[in-house]
Amino acid sequence: MRKKITLATLILAAASAAPAFAEEPGVGETLINLAYSIDTFYFLMSGALVMWMAAGFAMLEAGLVRGKNTVEILTKNVALYSIACIMYMFVGYNIMYGGGPNGFIPGLSFWLKADNGVDAVLASGGETYYSAMADFFFQVVFVATAMSIVSGAVAERMKLWSFLVFAVILTGFIYPVEGYWKWGGGFLDSLGFLDFAGSGVVHLCGASAAIAGVLLLGARKGKYAGGRVNAIPGANLPLATLGTFILWLGWFGFNGGSELKISNIEEANAVSMVFVNTNMAAAGGLVAALLLSQAWFGKADLTMALNGALAGLVAITAEPLTPTPLVATIVGVIGGLLVVLSIVLIDKARIDDPVGAISVHGVVGIWGLLAVAFTNPEGSLVAQLTGIGVIFAWVFGTSFAAWFIIKAVMGIRVSEEEELEGVDIAECGLEAYPEFTSK
Amino acid sequence: MRKKITLATLILAAASAAPAFAEEPGVGETLINLAYSIDTFYFLMSGALVMWMAAGFAMLEAGLVRGKNTVEILTKNVALYSIACIMYMFVGYNIMYGGGPNGFIPGLSFWLKADNGVDAVLASGGETYYSAMADFFFQVVFVATAMSIVSGAVAERMKLWSFLVFAVILTGFIYPVEGYWKWGGGFLDSLGFLDFAGSGVVHLCGASAAIAGVLLLGARKGKYAGGRVNAIPGANLPLATLGTFILWLGWFGFNGGSELKISNIEEANAVSMVFVNTNMAAAGGLVAALLLSQAWFGKADLTMALNGALAGLVAITAEPLTPTPLVATIVGVIGGLLVVLSIVLIDKARIDDPVGAISVHGVVGIWGLLAVAFTNPEGSLVAQLTGIGVIFAWVFGTSFAAWFIIKAVMGIRVSEEEELEGVDIAECGLEAYPEFTSK
Amino acid sequence: MRKKITLATLILAAASAAPAFAEEPGVGETLINLAYSIDTFYFLMSGALVMWMAAGFAMLEAGLVRGKNTVEILTKNVALYSIACIMYMFVGYNIMYGGGPNGFIPGLSFWLKADNGVDAVLASGGETYYSAMADFFFQVVFVATAMSIVSGAVAERMKLWSFLVFAVILTGFIYPVEGYWKWGGGFLDSLGFLDFAGSGVVHLCGASAAIAGVLLLGARKGKYAGGRVNAIPGANLPLATLGTFILWLGWFGFNGGSELKISNIEEANAVSMVFVNTNMAAAGGLVAALLLSQAWFGKADLTMALNGALAGLVAITAEPLTPTPLVATIVGVIGGLLVVLSIVLIDKARIDDPVGAISVHGVVGIWGLLAVAFTNPEGSLVAQLTGIGVIFAWVFGTSFAAWFIIKAVMGIRVSEEEELEGVDIAECGLEAYPEFTSK
Repeated sequence: MRKKITLATLILAAASAAPAFAEEPGVGETLINLAYSIDTFYFLMSGALVMWMAAGFAMLEAGLVRGKNTVEILTKNVALYSIACIMYMFVGYNIMYGGGPNGFIPGLSFWLKADNGVDAVLASGGETYYSAMADFFFQVVFVATAMSIVSGAVAERMKLWSFLVFAVILTGFIYPVEGYWKWGGGFLDSLGFLDFAGSGVVHLCGASAAIAGVLLLGARKGKYAGGRVNAIPGANLPLATLGTFILWLGWFGFNGGSELKISNIEEANAVSMVFVNTNMAAAGGLVAALLLSQAWFGKADLTMALNGALAGLVAITAEPLTPTPLVATIVGVIGGLLVVLSIVLIDKARIDDPVGAISVHGVVGIWGLLAVAFTNPEGSLVAQLTGIGVIFAWVFGTSFAAWFIIKAVMGIRVSEEEELEGVDIAECGLEAYPEFTSK
Repeated sequence: MRKKITLATLILAAASAAPAFAEEPGVGETLINLAYSIDTFYFLMSGALVMWMAAGFAMLEAGLVRGKNTVEILTKNVALYSIACIMYMFVGYNIMYGGGPNGFIPGLSFWLKADNGVDAVLASGGETYYSAMADFFFQVVFVATAMSIVSGAVAERMKLWSFLVFAVILTGFIYPVEGYWKWGGGFLDSLGFLDFAGSGVVHLCGASAAIAGVLLLGARKGKYAGGRVNAIPGANLPLATLGTFILWLGWFGFNGGSELKISNIEEANAVSMVFVNTNMAAAGGLVAALLLSQAWFGKADLTMALNGALAGLVAITAEPLTPTPLVATIVGVIGGLLVVLSIVLIDKARIDDPVGAISVHGVVGIWGLLAVAFTNPEGSLVAQLTGIGVIFAWVFGTSFAAWFIIKAVMGIRVSEEEELEGVDIAECGLEAYPEFTSK
Repeated sequence: MRKKITLATLILAAASAAPAFAEEPGVGETLINLAYSIDTFYFLMSGALVMWMAAGFAMLEAGLVRGKNTVEILTKNVALYSIACIMYMFVGYNIMYGGGPNGFIPGLSFWLKADNGVDAVLASGGETYYSAMADFFFQVVFVATAMSIVSGAVAERMKLWSFLVFAVILTGFIYPVEGYWKWGGGFLDSLGFLDFAGSGVVHLCGASAAIAGVLLLGARKGKYAGGRVNAIPGANLPLATLGTFILWLGWFGFNGGSELKISNIEEANAVSMVFVNTNMAAAGGLVAALLLSQAWFGKADLTMALNGALAGLVAITAEPLTPTPLVATIVGVIGGLLVVLSIVLIDKARIDDPVGAISVHGVVGIWGLLAVAFTNPEGSLVAQLTGIGVIFAWVFGTSFAAWFIIKAVMGIRVSEEEELEGVDIAECGLEAYPEFTSK
C-alpha cells in the first residue's frame, strides 16, 4: 500500500475545464472537502477493522494452546499491540514513511507531525486527499499484525518479557525498515516488487521473525518425545474459530483499505473488487483445506479448515485487485492446499509451531507474492523473488541477532518446571480457566 | 432489497436546471463520482457487518450444543459460509439477479460480470450509482445467512458432509430462485409481496429448509425419551450470548444496507430509521421474552431472552422503514412472545430443533411478513400470505427432495454410537474442549 | 458531545460567494445532500461500534465472575441494554436534548419526533447536517454504556430484577438529567465544564451509581473473610480479554463519533486525531498497568493490564482531540497507573467491586476530567471540579435513593444459600457451563 500521489483528476479537470467554475472557489473547495472526508472516513473504518484483527490473533492463539498457557498468550497479545502502537508512533512510522538519503537507508525522526492544514489541502487541488493522522492509524495496526504472527509460533515456552523486548525491536525497527524499502518508496519498490497489502511486508515479515525465534527456542517438551510427532490439542476450539472469523472480517480493512482511495467511481470499484476477492480467496482456502484433510487424514479437521481460510487470505493479500473472483478463489485454494502440506512437513522437520503461523504467513505468504507474477500483468517473477529474498534475509537475520542477544542477556525460555506447570502461573500468577481444568 | 433503479434526481436536476452547470461537466461528474463512492462504501460496510453474522451464528450454535458436538457445528458453519460464497459466485447471483424469460423461470449464466465502467456510470447520469461488485458482496453474505439458519436446527446428529452437499444445493439453486421471484423482480415482486430485507426470502427460507431436514432426520437420542421433553442444555452460554450480540450488530448491516442507498438526505434519513427500528425491535423482543419466561417458568431464562432478541430482529426485517420506533418495538415484542410460545409448542410436537431456529426464523419470520400488512400502507395481507405460501412451498418442497436424495445416497444421520460418543471425534477427529469435559 | 450548531461554512460560502452558483440550486443542494449523507453515515457507523461495546461489557464481566454467576450477569447485560433503548426512546432522549425552562430543569416530552424534512435541511443551508434518527441511535448506545458499568460492580450477589428496575430509573431519568446539564446545553455546559465524549457524563455517572449500589449491597460472602482480602478469580479470562478488545474497538465509535461531524477537511482531521489519541491512550494505559503489576506484585497480571487499557480509554474520553498523540499516551499511562493503585486501595477499603468498575470508570473518569484542564487551553480546573462534584452528587444521591427504595420494596441481595449455590440456578434456572464445572 505505497501511498498514492495521484492528482484528484476529476476535481482538477473540473477546475480547469470550466472558467465559470474557476471563479467559484466555493464549489471546487467543497468538492475537495467532501472527497477528503470520504477518503479519511474510509481509512478510519479500515483501520478499525485491522485493529480488530489483534483480537482475532489473540483468540485464535488462545484457543490453540493448552489451558495452562492461555493467560500468558493473551497477555502477550494485548501487550504487543500496545507496544507496537507506542514504538511506531515514537519512531517506526517516520522510519517507514519519512523518506531517506537513498532507497536503502531510511531517514530518522521522532513522533508524529501535525496533520495536513486545510489551506495546504485546498492549495494542492486534492492531491493531498486524506488525513495524515488517519494514515498513521491505518499503518500502525499493520505493525501490530506483523508482531501478532510471532506470538503464536513461540507460544507455550517463551518468556513473556523477552518476547515483549523483541516486540519493541521488531515494531520500532525491523518492520519499518523493510516497510520503507517497499511502501516507503525504497529500492524494492523501485525494482518493481509488488505487494498490495503485505503478503511480504507484513506476513512474511512476521513469519521470518517467528522462524528465527523458534530455531533458538526449540520445541515444546514432549512435542517430539518418543521419536514421534505428538499432537498437542488446543484447549478451546470455539475461541480459535471466533479468532478466525475476526481475522476474516478484519481482512476487509487490511486489503480493502490498502487501495488507499475510494472517493471516485474507479477507486470505489477497485475497493469493491478487493473485498470480493479477499472473501473468495478465504472461502477457497477453507474448502480446499477441509477437503484435503478429509481425503488425507480421513477427518474433517476444523483447525486445518481455519488455517485454510487464513492461508487464502494471506495468499490474496499480495494482489487482491487484478484477479477475477474466480482466479482469486483459485489463489486461495492453492493457499489452502499448501498450508495443510506445509503444517505437516514443518512438523516432520521438528520445527514446533503450535498454531501453524510459519506455514500460514510464511509459506503461503511466499505463494501469494509469487502468484502476483501471474495475476498482475505488471508483475515480474524476478522482482517477486528478489522481494521475498530481501524481506526474509533482513527480517530473519536481524531477528535472529535480536533473539540471540535477548537469549544471552535475559534468557528466552521458561524453566522446565514452569513449562510443565504451565507458564500462566509462573509468569502471570493467574489461571485462564480456574474452574474448568485441574491442570 | 430489490435493486433500485432510481434517477439520481438531484444530480440530474442540477445538470438540467442550470445551463451554466451543463457546460461544466467537471462539477456534475465529480458529484456523480462522490455519490457513487459513498453508496459503494455504504454497501461494503453493510456487507462486512452481514458477513460478521456468520460468526454470530457459529458462536450461537456452538454455545447451545453439547461440548461433544461443538467442533462439528463449528466446522459446518465455517464451511457453509465458504460454500455459499463459491456457489453464489458460480451461479446463484446470476440466477437471482440475471433476469429471466418470465417472472417464474430465472435466467442462467455463470461467474460474475465486470464492474460498471466509469463512462457508463457517468453517461447514466447517476442512475447506476454503486459498484456491481459491492452489490455482489452485499448479496452473497445474505445467502450464507439463510444457510446458517439450517445448521442449528439439524445440530448434534446430522452427518457433516451430507449437510455440506445440501449447502451446495440451497445456496446455488433453491435460495437464488425464490430470491429471483422477489428481489430479482419476479412474480412475487409483481404481486406486491413486500419483504424489505428478507424475513421471508432469507429467514423463512432457512427455516423451511431446516424443517424439511429435521423431519427426515428425527430427534436426538434421549430428547423425548421416557415420553417427556428432556432439556439438553448447551455447553457454553457466554458463547451463545456473544453470538447473539454479533447477530444484533450484524443486523444493522442486514437491514440498514437493504435500503440500498444513503447518498442524499431522504435516503440517509431512511437508513437511520432502519437502524433505530432494528435496534428497538430487538430490544422489545428481548424484554418481552425475558418477562414471559419469568412469568411462565418462574426463571429469567437467558436462552429465551436471546431468542427473543433474535425474534425481534427477524420480525422487523420485513419492514424496518415505515413503522415508528414505538411500533417497531411492538413488532419486536410480539416476536419475542411468539418465539417463547413457539419453542415450547414445537418441542411438544416433538420436532427437535436444538437452537430454536425454526421458531426464530420460521414462525417469527411469518409474523414479520404479516406485520407488513399493518405497518406499511402499501402492504396487502393477501400478497403477504401468497409470498409466505410460495416461499415455504418452494423451499420446503425442494429441500425435502434434496435431503431425501442425499439420505438415500449417502445417509444424513450419524450412527447411534457416534451420536452417543459425540460427532466431533467421529467426524472431525478433534475435541472442542479437551481439557474441560470428560464427555 | 454537545450537539454542534455550526454553519456549514464552506457550502454557504459557496452559495454566497458565487453569483453564478446561486443561480444553480442543483449544485448547492447536491452538495448539502452529500455532506448530510456522509455525516449521517458516520453517525450510524459510530453508533454501531458503541452498540458493540455492550457485548464488550458482557464478555468482560462474564469472564471475571465465577462460573456459577455467569448466566445472571449475561442476562443483566442483555436486558439492561434493551431497557436502556426503550427508556431512552420513551423519555430519556427528550429529557436530555429537549431543552428546558432553564439550565437546571429539563423539559419533558415523550417518544421520538419525526426526522428532519428534506426541505428544512436545504433551507437551513446545511446547518442541519445529519439525521435526527441517526443522532438518537448514537446517543442511545451511550446510555447503555453508562448502565453497563453498574452491572459489573454489583455482580455475583444482586438480585436480577432489582437490578433491572434500577436500570429503568438510571437510563430513563438519572442519566438524561445530568446529560442535559452538559450535552443538552444546561448549566454545566454554560459553566465551561468540558467533557468531549463522557468521562464524566457516561463513565463517572456509571461509577457513581455503582458505588451507591455496592454500599447498600455489601461485599460478596467470603471476600473479606478471615480479616483478609481474598482474591476471587474469574472463570474465563479469554472471555474477559475478548471483552476488552471489543470495548477498545467500540471506543473508536464512542470518542470518534463524538466529534459529531466529519464532512470537511478540518472535521475529518479532528476525527482522525481522536482515533489516534484514543488508541494511544489505551496502549499507554495497558503498558503502564502491566509494568506496575510486574514491579509491584512480581507478576504480569493480565486483568490489571486489561483494566489499564480500559483506564487509558476512560481517561482520554474527556478530551481526545486537543492533546498530541504523545500527550494522549501519557494521559493513558497515568490512568493505567491509577487504576492499579485504585483497585488495590478500594479492595483494602472493603468496597467489593468484582470487576474494578469503580476504579476504571470512577477514579480514572475523574482523572480524565481533570486532565482536560491541562490538555485543552479552554479547560478550567474549577469548571472541571464543579462538573465532577455535580455529576457525582446527582448520580450518587439519586441512585442511593433509588437503590434504597428498591431494597426496601423488593430487596436487592440474593439469599445466602443462593449466593453460595450461585445465582444462575436460582435466578435463571440455567448453568453457563454445565459440562465444565462440577459445582
